Amino acid sequence: MPADAVGSLPGPADGLPPLVDHHCHGVLRHAPDPGTFAAYLTESDRPPAAGTTFFDTQAGFAVRRWCPPLLGLPAHCPPDRYLARRAGLGPAETRRRLLRATGIGTYLLDTGLPGDLTGPAETAADGGGAGFEVVRLETLAERLAAGTRDAEEFTDALARAVRDAARTAVAFKSVVAYRHGLALDPAPPAPGAVHTAARSWLAAGAPRLTDPVLLRHLVQLAVATGRPLQLHTGFGDPDLRLDHADPALLTDLVRTTADTGTDLVLLHCYPYHRQAAYLAAVFPHVYADIGLSLTHTGPRAAAVLAEFLELAPFGKLLFSTDAYGLPELYVVGSALFRTALGTVLGDWVSSGAWSAEDARRVGAMIAADNARRVYGLEGG
Amino acid sequence: MPADAVGSLPGPADGLPPLVDHHCHGVLRHAPDPGTFAAYLTESDRPPAAGTTFFDTQAGFAVRRWCPPLLGLPAHCPPDRYLARRAGLGPAETRRRLLRATGIGTYLLDTGLPGDLTGPAETAADGGGAGFEVVRLETLAERLAAGTRDAEEFTDALARAVRDAARTAVAFKSVVAYRHGLALDPAPPAPGAVHTAARSWLAAGAPRLTDPVLLRHLVQLAVATGRPLQLHTGFGDPDLRLDHADPALLTDLVRTTADTGTDLVLLHCYPYHRQAAYLAAVFPHVYADIGLSLTHTGPRAAAVLAEFLELAPFGKLLFSTDAYGLPELYVVGSALFRTALGTVLGDWVSSGAWSAEDARRVGAMIAADNARRVYGLEGG
Amino acid sequence: MPADAVGSLPGPADGLPPLVDHHCHGVLRHAPDPGTFAAYLTESDRPPAAGTTFFDTQAGFAVRRWCPPLLGLPAHCPPDRYLARRAGLGPAETRRRLLRATGIGTYLLDTGLPGDLTGPAETAADGGGAGFEVVRLETLAERLAAGTRDAEEFTDALARAVRDAARTAVAFKSVVAYRHGLALDPAPPAPGAVHTAARSWLAAGAPRLTDPVLLRHLVQLAVATGRPLQLHTGFGDPDLRLDHADPALLTDLVRTTADTGTDLVLLHCYPYHRQAAYLAAVFPHVYADIGLSLTHTGPRAAAVLAEFLELAPFGKLLFSTDAYGLPELYVVGSALFRTALGTVLGDWVSSGAWSAEDARRVGAMIAADNARRVYGLEGG
Repeated sequence: MPADAVGSLPGPADGLPPLVDHHCHGVLRHAPDPGTFAAYLTESDRPPAAGTTFFDTQAGFAVRRWCPPLLGLPAHCPPDRYLARRAGLGPAETRRRLLRATGIGTYLLDTGLPGDLTGPAETAADGGGAGFEVVRLETLAERLAAGTRDAEEFTDALARAVRDAARTAVAFKSVVAYRHGLALDPAPPAPGAVHTAARSWLAAGAPRLTDPVLLRHLVQLAVATGRPLQLHTGFGDPDLRLDHADPALLTDLVRTTADTGTDLVLLHCYPYHRQAAYLAAVFPHVYADIGLSLTHTGPRAAAVLAEFLELAPFGKLLFSTDAYGLPELYVVGSALFRTALGTVLGDWVSSGAWSAEDARRVGAMIAADNARRVYGLEGG
Repeated sequence: MPADAVGSLPGPADGLPPLVDHHCHGVLRHAPDPGTFAAYLTESDRPPAAGTTFFDTQAGFAVRRWCPPLLGLPAHCPPDRYLARRAGLGPAETRRRLLRATGIGTYLLDTGLPGDLTGPAETAADGGGAGFEVVRLETLAERLAAGTRDAEEFTDALARAVRDAARTAVAFKSVVAYRHGLALDPAPPAPGAVHTAARSWLAAGAPRLTDPVLLRHLVQLAVATGRPLQLHTGFGDPDLRLDHADPALLTDLVRTTADTGTDLVLLHCYPYHRQAAYLAAVFPHVYADIGLSLTHTGPRAAAVLAEFLELAPFGKLLFSTDAYGLPELYVVGSALFRTALGTVLGDWVSSGAWSAEDARRVGAMIAADNARRVYGLEGG
Repeated sequence: MPADAVGSLPGPADGLPPLVDHHCHGVLRHAPDPGTFAAYLTESDRPPAAGTTFFDTQAGFAVRRWCPPLLGLPAHCPPDRYLARRAGLGPAETRRRLLRATGIGTYLLDTGLPGDLTGPAETAADGGGAGFEVVRLETLAERLAAGTRDAEEFTDALARAVRDAARTAVAFKSVVAYRHGLALDPAPPAPGAVHTAARSWLAAGAPRLTDPVLLRHLVQLAVATGRPLQLHTGFGDPDLRLDHADPALLTDLVRTTADTGTDLVLLHCYPYHRQAAYLAAVFPHVYADIGLSLTHTGPRAAAVLAEFLELAPFGKLLFSTDAYGLPELYVVGSALFRTALGTVLGDWVSSGAWSAEDARRVGAMIAADNARRVYGLEGG
């Protein structure tokens, strides 16, 4: 029971409903070696610099703070000792112990990443909650392309696949920030242009999809379904150019989708989270995600959350962990969120700026209620 | 007497002179219905998202914190109860009670917004202070265009109107950030180009002015008068593209106006307030406004003010409320400013970083003295 | 002995090793008049605005906080009294007293600025430490150009001079941010293009170097030596366009230099320090400097340092003062660093987020160990 489990992590989590993690990924089914474990602590896809380790980061320190006690070790114990204990327990027991301590009751899981990872139902079962799928558009297109060389066939299959996915998945996700940058032509590409682009791409063997026409087409297909569309914005791995991932660059797309009835959820956002909060404040169909930004900033999570809470209407912010690969990242994401929320709202109540009742209500909105409403989940 | 009134609001306001609100707007003469009231709490010009309300924002919470006690209700009381009490008092009495509690002694009021709003003298009379006019350039041009179809006649009338306004108004304001963005060609457009642009615009029936040549011409006309020019920068309603409103984009205009003797005042600035503070630090004729940014960030006002105070020389920051429509926004803007100033400077004195005497002096500079000097007000 | 001297400044400096100031400049050999002194407190190259003084800035207040006690006066005493005392002591004694109080043991000094300034060995001798040279590329090119009119001769001499400098200097520095902006074509320019550009530049009398081909060529020459390359990013004097100095604009250059074995050190960074920290997080050869940003933000130094520490791996941040002209700026830079570090890490230890042992270790890394490793200094 997630609600019971809240108590297993320190922090002012009391009174929050089971969390809805509206954007996360599967975790490794097998036990990672130490180097693989460390690589999941960073957004870098490269080795650490000589003389440094990925454990010497806020994410590394946060794992050492929150996770060892859940496996019976003292907080801040050295990485080696933690990894040895983890290896002794095995991956399944580690997953179960860690996920059950997060207080997460619902997982909206992006299935578009590679690796031997747990799926939505499996992750949720480990954590004692419910799982739903988020479909990554670019992965969907790349998988379909593997089965065909014909552009017409491909585009038909793609349209069908997106429509089909909308029946079972709770949302779509676009990583156009990585593939092209967010300064996207917001107009739907003409059908002829889509076919031409598809033909070229398939002829080239359908490599990693970066064609702007096809990327725009994917976004438009998703918007047409009415399912919320999650868009990566802000920091991520170095494939991405940070300044091309400023969510303010999405303004034109935001304007042209304002009357479609489809909600846009800006993921991550950092260090442009104030820009994302602004868009959420002035456009009814725009929402902002606070995940990842908290996971990677450790004891600064309260400050970053507070910056989100400057302009963002309280009905527009959504909790997530963006955990990937390691169940530890679910622990860190949820523990930092609950600690940061308690610190920030607690301070505002103490100073008289907010009432305690408002703080409780807003906490529940960000933790779960907003996501339930936006994604149409039971109880929302 | 504003000085007496300071005590009516909680907060460490002691010792501040009557505030000079160097950028504000009129308030509604009539009683707003609940939906209209809520719409003034946001920069959005659209309805709230389904399941949300504009009261669930920092501006909404700040109104509920500061205003009910001024009308005899408990802080944080529900919106309905507050609005009922307000309706019972009537708009004139509400205005008087709220404005008299702000500690504002001088109002520099932008008269370029539509609506049945109080003017400078009227607003100041309600608040017990002095009122001055700030002339919005684009509105001036649009009003003049309504009376003529002849380009030559129009440009002559425009030049005359700007010169005339400079005799009575204390400053000009440009909203070129909304109409074009701040990446403006800083060169004065050639007279021939101005006439051509005016002809096209008038022939089209003089719609909302967005022609870059005419917008640049307006800026140059204002700069030539020597009156301070207020420029909207940073966040605002969704007409604006946030990334095109970064004050750093004004650098070329700042350079070309450096020796004109005219001061430029960067309004709002958020979330680019550190950029604005930088420009104020390195260019003698550039100033930065802290209004609006505080009103919309509630208990984060101290943090935002502190960010302004990193690079901005203390003689270069100006208080404002940017209040518009609701007298509540005057209350919130001034209360948050005084609370934030007390918190930030109080902490710096406690830690030994600043002396108490310096803190008192800098507080008075930002609250009133800088504005008196820049706008040439009595006592400045 | 720098280690002993740490105690002369207040602040939680206990336990830090002698600091390595990895980016600084010489100080004036002569006594500055009051106007010259004040001009060194700002990045502006212009006079203060009418009615204001450069002492009314965070840098001015920080000098008045930390320096008077080192010359036997009370903290926060008026500028005139401080300057009179300083004049009485004379420049040599003032330098000695102030530098010995900083706790800096190693000076990496950029020798590319004009003025009657102390050199690396001389500055280090005054402070009781060791000095090393950082060679500024653009100054090197401009000095060489003074001796020749022949493009071939010049480019040969330039290549030789960079190679020679790499034997004695510990690093190179580029101010391409000032001369062109950071959105640089990352490709090495073709030899023919370099010769053409050199010919034009020499024919024009070799004015201030702003030719993008020659600027890019300089960067490539430096990268080829394997010595760390310091790049100015973020704020500086108004020569620079702030938005063109966002380190994110360096992404392409960062990518093309990833496998050269040469480290890139992003200087200053503010207000784009979160962007710089991101680059340091995802690219092994990228480092970020926290100097200047602390010196100019006074009691906000802890907040700015904390923002750096969100994404930046702890092995990637480097202390500096960026002091220039006044020994006071060495005092302010080191005192603010030690105070900020003590505040930030102390809070994180108190809250349980970090262990005390980790905090001590990370403090030493930023203060000295990272710089020793990156620049190959003894003990590193």
